[in-house]
Order: sequence, then structure tokens, then C-alpha cells
Amino acid sequence: MTAVRNVLFVMCDQLRRDHVSCYGESRLETPNIDRLAARGVRFDNAFVQAGVCGPARMSFYTGRYVNSHGATWNRVPLSAAELTLGDYLRAAGRTAALAGKTHVLPDTDALRRFGIEIESERGALLREGGFVVVDRYDGHTPPGVESGYAEWLRARGYESDDPWSDFVVSAVDGGRVVSGWQLRNAHLPSRVEEQHSETAYMTDLALDWIRAQGSKPWVLHLSYVKPHWPYVAPAPFHKLFRRKDIGPIRRGPQDGTADEHPVVHAYREHDECKTFAREEVVRHVRPAYMGLVAQVDFHLGRVLDALESMGRMHDTLIVFTSDHGEFAGDRGLGEKELLYDEIVRVPMIVMDPDSRADPTRGKGETRFVEGIDVLPTIVEALGIAGSRHRVEGRSLLPLSRDEALPAWRDAVFSELDYGFRRARTVLGRGVRDCRAMMVRTGEWKYVHWEGFRPQLFDLARDPLEQNDHGAAPELDAIRSRLRERLFDWLATSKRRTTVDDALVEARTDTHRAHGIHIGIW
Amino acid sequence: MTAVRNVLFVMCDQLRRDHVSCYGESRLETPNIDRLAARGVRFDNAFVQAGVCGPARMSFYTGRYVNSHGATWNRVPLSAAELTLGDYLRAAGRTAALAGKTHVLPDTDALRRFGIEIESERGALLREGGFVVVDRYDGHTPPGVESGYAEWLRARGYESDDPWSDFVVSAVDGGRVVSGWQLRNAHLPSRVEEQHSETAYMTDLALDWIRAQGSKPWVLHLSYVKPHWPYVAPAPFHKLFRRKDIGPIRRGPQDGTADEHPVVHAYREHDECKTFAREEVVRHVRPAYMGLVAQVDFHLGRVLDALESMGRMHDTLIVFTSDHGEFAGDRGLGEKELLYDEIVRVPMIVMDPDSRADPTRGKGETRFVEGIDVLPTIVEALGIAGSRHRVEGRSLLPLSRDEALPAWRDAVFSELDYGFRRARTVLGRGVRDCRAMMVRTGEWKYVHWEGFRPQLFDLARDPLEQNDHGAAPELDAIRSRLRERLFDWLATSKRRTTVDDALVEARTDTHRAHGIHIGIW
Repeated sequence: MTAVRNVLFVMCDQLRRDHVSCYGESRLETPNIDRLAARGVRFDNAFVQAGVCGPARMSFYTGRYVNSHGATWNRVPLSAAELTLGDYLRAAGRTAALAGKTHVLPDTDALRRFGIEIESERGALLREGGFVVVDRYDGHTPPGVESGYAEWLRARGYESDDPWSDFVVSAVDGGRVVSGWQLRNAHLPSRVEEQHSETAYMTDLALDWIRAQGSKPWVLHLSYVKPHWPYVAPAPFHKLFRRKDIGPIRRGPQDGTADEHPVVHAYREHDECKTFAREEVVRHVRPAYMGLVAQVDFHLGRVLDALESMGRMHDTLIVFTSDHGEFAGDRGLGEKELLYDEIVRVPMIVMDPDSRADPTRGKGETRFVEGIDVLPTIVEALGIAGSRHRVEGRSLLPLSRDEALPAWRDAVFSELDYGFRRARTVLGRGVRDCRAMMVRTGEWKYVHWEGFRPQLFDLARDPLEQNDHGAAPELDAIRSRLRERLFDWLATSKRRTTVDDALVEARTDTHRAHGIHIGIW
Repeated sequence: MTAVRNVLFVMCDQLRRDHVSCYGESRLETPNIDRLAARGVRFDNAFVQAGVCGPARMSFYTGRYVNSHGATWNRVPLSAAELTLGDYLRAAGRTAALAGKTHVLPDTDALRRFGIEIESERGALLREGGFVVVDRYDGHTPPGVESGYAEWLRARGYESDDPWSDFVVSAVDGGRVVSGWQLRNAHLPSRVEEQHSETAYMTDLALDWIRAQGSKPWVLHLSYVKPHWPYVAPAPFHKLFRRKDIGPIRRGPQDGTADEHPVVHAYREHDECKTFAREEVVRHVRPAYMGLVAQVDFHLGRVLDALESMGRMHDTLIVFTSDHGEFAGDRGLGEKELLYDEIVRVPMIVMDPDSRADPTRGKGETRFVEGIDVLPTIVEALGIAGSRHRVEGRSLLPLSRDEALPAWRDAVFSELDYGFRRARTVLGRGVRDCRAMMVRTGEWKYVHWEGFRPQLFDLARDPLEQNDHGAAPELDAIRSRLRERLFDWLATSKRRTTVDDALVEARTDTHRAHGIHIGIW
């Protein structure tokens, strides 16, 4: 039996589960992700707590549902009162290092109120969600001062004030520099060499950092900004796939009709849905997306090779997942956010080096897991006391170690706040009236929409969620039952966060010992 | 029209609504509370957000439901992330002063994490829930270092290390000093003179402080620890009332039987319920409780006289209320916590000096109001910007000023966490599995109990809540409807607290302006 000494938590951004070959539906091969799956457990029913980066990640980092941590969308800071993976590790004398993206925004109002300078050590931790930053780079904008990427690019000959805009997401077409933001250019190679791309850079940094740890145990969050847009891949990944490789684009009978849900309908007003509603756009862009996935897979292979050569595969817990998926034209939609399986069902692989996990290696696990489970998994693997009064996820080690469990969850939950999106103004909603909450069991998916009818999908008969029965009178009883599940979920979410369970236990019925003598004659 | 310059927010502890004579059911006269009601609005349907001090008060101070602020019981600190009345005032250059009780516990884990010394100015504010302390005294234990009461007593000849225990809650019986904690001694006068009692002391301090403000505008929370137990009143209040004055003790046909709710049944195992189940105890103790109420009323009269003589009645908003009620033997129960109207329906009077409130002076208002409404009322009265993204209460000024309103709430909500109570161990529940949530409309009260059947009362036919229809099959539809109300309440509670509504509005659909060019061909 080998104890877990190190943790590598790899996250991709916007990686669709059906673009990972070990999940059996992919039209591209991901040999390195598959290789990891062969040594660990592949979770076939893994769901994230939101279909957009910020809230989904805050759930990974806090182990709490969005409704509990409160960072409901990308522009919403994580409350300073929340504890993250880094905080739990730090309390045990460990640190969580970061190479890549977190999407954490600082709770500047709280910092000001508490008199904490954002540049102080304490301020930096709050700003970075508890991570110690090796290099932070959130992607899809020029790398900020926290990242060395721009400087690193310039040192490699990419002369520019903003080498990311001018090279990484640019291409050349007929001698003219064109922007990778424009979907029409998705077939062109990026102006950076592959070895200087975002994915290569962050992999290099991570490997250098891991090597620098020597024999010291470590925890690293390697968080790729890809295959998230801009859809521009470096050579040769830009041309690995062609229009014919993408296969059918999923369309349902209700898509775009008056029968679909009003909020879904309003999302079609977004630019990215208007363009991805055109099949030629999808066929033009998806090969680049697939190339970016293949590139991430390639660099994951470098990481696995390095860990093997360092002898770290036997004592390193590896978690591989994505913060959410993307539509890429399915349903005639672009981007993400909405609570369909394309978005909220993600790839998740856990490679637990402990010999107790040997029986599950290479297997698929169909029980429901959630993004909030990663934190308690890491914490338990390292033998660190968790925080049952705050954390809403469950450790996955009992699953990887095939332990007898009295029960496991039979539903997962995810949320959306579209207050910042154009759909809100299309629908004339107030900024606080744009919440959706999903419960998904093995058979049904129910989405509660504030101010609108719910969505309901019969997953047993309609696994692609093409027929929304949210208004079907004959399914009233089903909807009530699922709404009950949401009620119970809301009513039991963890709100009493300032005292732990042990204190409550110790202080139960002890008023007499504290000089409070009520009820004595 | 006179602007509100000052605010006096008076709270009593454990004052039953039916012990205030302007509410029409009292067997004792409260001429001074009535006098305030004659100049303001008497809210006939005012409810607190919990039936126990800590969480109820945190809701008054934050303007948020318990499920939102998270301080679910007396031993649970208020999260450092919550903003209080004092914080809102401070942001506008004002302060909220405190004379008396708050029950705020410091969020010591957060203070440690943020590097804030509890004795620093910032630490003191967090420790005191944002109040600037004139004198803090939480009652029913010897006054701590924050209160000058013990020293003040010694200066008046009460020689003791602990004059509160030895004099304030002691009595003399047959030449022997006896404890006021013992209910058998409730008929005896306290060993302090009335002018040195807790209520007198805090009134003196408050008046001195108000006078010391001179012409400066002020906000004071005068928070009495009475008529809360120990039930020992100073002369002559100990003998104003007799056994016959208390009238009938309410008992219902289900009380103590197998038909009552299991959690209510478990509460009967508490000492205070065992003693108060005996009618002779109730008849012995209630006169002391009534005396303590009369005493609070007397001192409120001193406050009103002083404000009148200072000319402050015309520019001071006065709020008078209680944090919750008490059973005092009704239903065979003692103490509080359970979500019956004896506990959660409180007296609340708002005297709004603004001339726009003239039409409502002396009137009763039957619309539903809640403890969470006090903060937004004060803030609005002072012309301070509120915090719509956090505060869940509503200003009562539109009611006191009889403004046309499109709609008002038609239900109120209250909660209980009995994780710290003996009832939990009686029922074999885990510390996190003891939550109850109440919705009360004009016609119905529904209480959701985690792990148990709900309670349901038909208030139109059974205003005393004596027949619990929580299991009656014929009322299934009613229960579903009320559970829907709870669902909506939970699903719309304010979770996105780190950004305000204006930011969301300003940042809606603005990604293009921030260099994010998704969806362009």
C-alpha cells in the first residue's frame, strides 16, 4: 500500500466529454487521457455545478454548490468567507500550487473592510482563491502581470507588446495577419509554434515546478485554458481534423421553435448562438476545437511521461477533468451555460496510486459524481481533516478503492445565473431574477427556472434531451417529485459554516455547565 | 415635513406580544409602549426570523433570513462576510451605538485567517456586529468586561465579585439568600433596588449617552435583557401581579400526546418544559415575568419623557420590538424556539416622526412585517443607500407613510436549528439534521421539519394552533402549496452578495467591450 504524497489536479477548460476517446463517443483519439483512465477510474456520470467557468470552478475549489459559495457567474468574486482547497491544505501545513487558470475574482469589498492589502501575502491568497501561484493565466485575454507567458513569448522572438493577441490568437491568411477571434479563420494555424502555445507553456512550467520540488511532497493544480475559444490551434493541430471528421451535428425537433424553453430561446439571441446555428460555421470551427483537444492530450502525455520517469506515478493522485463542456453547434447553440448534458456532464478520471485502488484500475464507474467531490477527495487522500460542516461534496476514494458503501447519491445538481447575459434583457428580467437550478437523476432531468416553466427531460427514452416535457400535463407527478428533490437539496445546503460539527456536538445541552440554570424549581 | 435625524431601536428580550396592552389581549397595562403606539404604527402581524435570541437578532442586524446569514443558533458566530446595520451606517459616515444586548459572537476563525486582532478597532467592530459599544451586556450571565454594570453596582454598595449573581438575581427568603434561578423564588423581590436593576441601569446609560450627543445626530440600539429569565423582579414590580392575574393557561387537545409533532414532543424532555408543564409553576412564575414587563414599560416611559423634554420626539425614528416571545407554560411548554405564534409573533411599533406618517399615527397595521425589515427601515429613514443584493427585508416607511404600494408580502418565514438542544439527542438526529422552516400566511402555518412530517395549522379556524394537520391526508393540496412557498423562498434567497445589482446591470452583455469577441464570423 502506497500513501498518496502528491496531487496533480488537471483541469481543462470547455472540454466536451464526447471528445475524449475513453468515453466511447469520440471522433478523435485522446491516447494520453485514455492512458490515465487505464490506470485509474473513469467516472461516466460526472457533473459540474454550473455550465460556466467561474461558478463551476469555485465549486471545485470550495467543495460547495454554487448556491452555497455564492459566486454565481464569471464576474462574481468568491466571498472571502469561503474556504478553498488551498485553505484546507494550508491549515495542515501544505500548499496548493497553481499553474494556469482559476477564474477567482478577489472579494475586494471584504478585503477593504478587513484592511487587507491585495498585494500582501494574505491579500494574494484571497485574490488567488488560496492557491500559491506558480503562474496564473486565465486565458482568452492577453496574459496579465501574474503570468510570465507574454515575457516568455517575447524571449522566444515574438516581438510585440501583446504577443498573445498578435501571435497566439492570430494567423496569417494570404500574407495578411488575421484574428483568431474570427471564426472564419479557425482553419488557419496560430502564429505561434506549437511548443510556444498556451498549452505547451503551462505544461513546461508545471514540469519545471514539479522537478524543482525534488523529494518534497507537492500539490499542483495544472489548469489548461484550452480547448476553450478562441478556436485557433497551432500547427500541426490546426489540420489534424477536417469537416467530415466532426460527424452529425445534433438537432432536436424543438430547437429554435416556440416549443423550446423561453430562456433557451432567448439565448439564441447571443452572437455565439447566431453564428453556431449555421452548419457551415460548425463544420469550419469544430476541427480547430478537436485539434486543441488533441493538443491538450499530447501535453498531458508529456506530463505522464515525466511523472513516470521521475517515479512519481506510484505516489501521486491524479485528477483529470474539465470545468464544463460546450455546444459547438449542437442544438443550434454556441458556447455553454445552459444545463444540458453537453455542458454539465464532463470527463473525470481519478488515478489513485494507493494499492487499494488496484481493483478499479481501468474501470468505468457509473455512480454520480460532482465537481464538488474533488476537494474532499484530495483532502482525504492526503490524510487531512476535512470540513463536514462546509464541504458539500464527498470523497471519491471509497469509489476508487471499491469500498462497501451504505449508500451513494442518486442525483446531481447544477445551477445558472444568467443575470449578466443578453438573454436577461431579451426576456426583460431583473438582475436578481435569473436563476435556474437543475436536478438530474438517472432517469430524469428537471430544471427550475425562476419566473418560467421548468424543463423536463426523460433521459431513459430521450438521452439527448431533445423533447422538453416541462409543460406536459401527464408528467405533473414526475415534476413534483423532482421539485421535491430540489427542495430537499436547498433545505439541507450547508449554511452554518462558522462553527464545526464537533463544537455543536460538544455544546449540545450543556447550558447548565455554563451557568445557565433554566427550568429548575 | 421633518427629516429623521436620530434613530432609537429598542429591543426587549423574550417579550410576549400578548403582554403588551395596545395589542388588546394583555392582562397587564403597558402605558408607555401604548403611548409610543399612539404616536406611531402598531404592527399587528410582526414576525421574527427565529424563535431564539441569536439567529433572530442576527436577522434584525443584517436584514437577512437565518438561512442567508447562517448564524442558526445562539452559539453560532455571525460570519465576518455579513454586513450589519452598523456597517451600512458606517459606510455613510454614521455609527450605530449599542447599549445592551446583541448576542453577536465573533467569527474567530475568520478573524484569525484575516489576521485581525480581536482587540483592534476592526476586530472590535466584527466582534460587536458592527455596533460601537456604549455598554454591552447580553444578560442571564454575570456581566462581562464589556459592561460597566458590575462596577456600577459595586459603586452603589453591592459588595461582591459578582454582584449580578449575588444581588440582581438573588433574593432573601427567611433571612437566607436564595437564587433567582430557582423558579420557586420568583415571588420574591430581587436583592437590588429597582433603580439599580438591569433595566434601570441600561436606561440610565442610554439617556446619559443621548444627552451627551448634544446636537449631533445619533443612532442607538437600546437592547434590554428583560423580561427574559431569570424571573426575578425588583420591588415593587415583584408583587404587582398575582396568580389570579395570569388568566387561563393555553392547552390544546394534542399537547403532550402521541398526536403532536415528534420534535415538539422531544422538546418536552427539556428541563424548562418539564417544570412549566406544571400549572403551579406557571402561576408562580408568570407574575414575576409580568412584573419584568411592567418594569421595561416603566423605563421606556423614562426614555420617552427624556426625548420629549429634549425635543427629540420630532426628529427621532423609534422602533420598539422584541427578539421573540416565550411559552411560559402555554401548551405545557417553557422557553421558546418552536415556531408557534407565542414565539415568533412579536410586538413591533414604529414611530416615524416624518409628517408623511401623520395619517397612520395611532393606527394598527395588519400587513405582514418581519424582523429583517428593521434594518432597511432605519437605513431608508436616514437616506442611506441600502444593499438590495444582500438585504432581504423591506423598509416599513411606505407603510408608516401610507404610500400606495403595488404589492406587499403575503407570507412570513422563520427557522429553527435545534442541533444544540437535548431534543436532538432524544430523537437521535445528527448535528446537521435539525432544521425547521416555517411559512405563515394569513390563513395557514406550515413548518417543514427535516426528517419528520411537517406541521400545519389552519389559522382561520384555529388561531391558537392547537390542531396540527401535518399528517391529515385531506389537506395534501394545502401542504403542497405551502411547501411551494418555502421552495420559492429558498430558491430566491440572496446568495450573490459580493457584487451589487448596479454592477450586474452595468456588466450585462458587455464582453465585447472587454475584448472578448465570441461568436463573430
